[in-house]
Amino acid sequence: MNNDGSTRLERLIEALRCMPGIGRKSAQRIAYHLLRRDRDGARTLATALVDAVDHIGHCSRCRIFSEEPLCSVCTNEKRDRGLLCVVESPADVYAVEDAGYRGLYFVLMGHLSPLDGIGPDELQLDRLEAILDEGAVKEVILATNPTVEGEATAHYIGEMVHRRKLRVTRIAHGVPVGGELEYIDSGTLSHALSGRREV
Amino acid sequence: MNNDGSTRLERLIEALRCMPGIGRKSAQRIAYHLLRRDRDGARTLATALVDAVDHIGHCSRCRIFSEEPLCSVCTNEKRDRGLLCVVESPADVYAVEDAGYRGLYFVLMGHLSPLDGIGPDELQLDRLEAILDEGAVKEVILATNPTVEGEATAHYIGEMVHRRKLRVTRIAHGVPVGGELEYIDSGTLSHALSGRREV
Repeated sequence: MNNDGSTRLERLIEALRCMPGIGRKSAQRIAYHLLRRDRDGARTLATALVDAVDHIGHCSRCRIFSEEPLCSVCTNEKRDRGLLCVVESPADVYAVEDAGYRGLYFVLMGHLSPLDGIGPDELQLDRLEAILDEGAVKEVILATNPTVEGEATAHYIGEMVHRRKLRVTRIAHGVPVGGELEYIDSGTLSHALSGRREV
Repeated sequence: MNNDGSTRLERLIEALRCMPGIGRKSAQRIAYHLLRRDRDGARTLATALVDAVDHIGHCSRCRIFSEEPLCSVCTNEKRDRGLLCVVESPADVYAVEDAGYRGLYFVLMGHLSPLDGIGPDELQLDRLEAILDEGAVKEVILATNPTVEGEATAHYIGEMVHRRKLRVTRIAHGVPVGGELEYIDSGTLSHALSGRREV
């Protein structure tokens, strides 16, 4: 539009693209919508963004998102302190919470990936070892993603837990509830077969 | 999660939903992504939002988004001042621009909708009349949406322009370029048939 006046609009459209899944067309649509119909919403969003980025950090113990040095999971006395679930990202925690889990967590903030220079030190597994050495945890549930890196990470941590003579389990992989066999990939189906249980 | 510490996160997720096409799941995903990987992007977005909302208004003449009282289209001497394209929303202007149009615009900011109390006064059609009465415009192109309301609005404005003995045209409706007849709705195909041209 050779429109010097639209620089701020262009900047907004460009800035909106920092969000995952938002391409140029969606960013334009969002910008026009906010400018035309929801300027208050845009202001509220701006405040919420700065507020979140400034105040939400990670729990110093389990590393889930928290505004306090210790999160409300780690400080909650009603939680089962004998169970520790290891996940890759803070977002995974919310998925596991929704499934009804009520133990503690340890967020790896990634997975082992030697090619990218991510080893046990980068995942700060020494902090996980420190938690295990406190003696309260009886079982470690490995809930890393069912990818090559996630499996390798689970294996590595599994060995670590085994050396401490603690129970270690891996979440089950198989056919999703509601899924149809016909559309399941062979890797998942192979997992489902080898993980079959007596009924 | 019964997590008092996640209030700011909840507020951010809720605030993200002001954007069209962003539901709860997408909002969560975006919030986790920004917090974990792109805090700078979140800050930039917040600044761009406030900056845009505070400084982008509407051109006092044609009402497209503009940071100045008169937009760069209305003040651009190279534009064809004999052509005026009437569209429903500022976003439509960008679509028409992309198609290579180089005349002037008038943005209705809606369409006639008597049931919602939107009549000629609400669309400020007197401002359109004032522009027409200046005498420079020779042709009005009606580019409202091909909906019932859009057609009614186009008809109303068409009559208004006719009374001034100016040329008035409606953008063509028909089969989209690259579209397949088989998948075109009957209304569009009926438009395409009645709008057929000699080859």
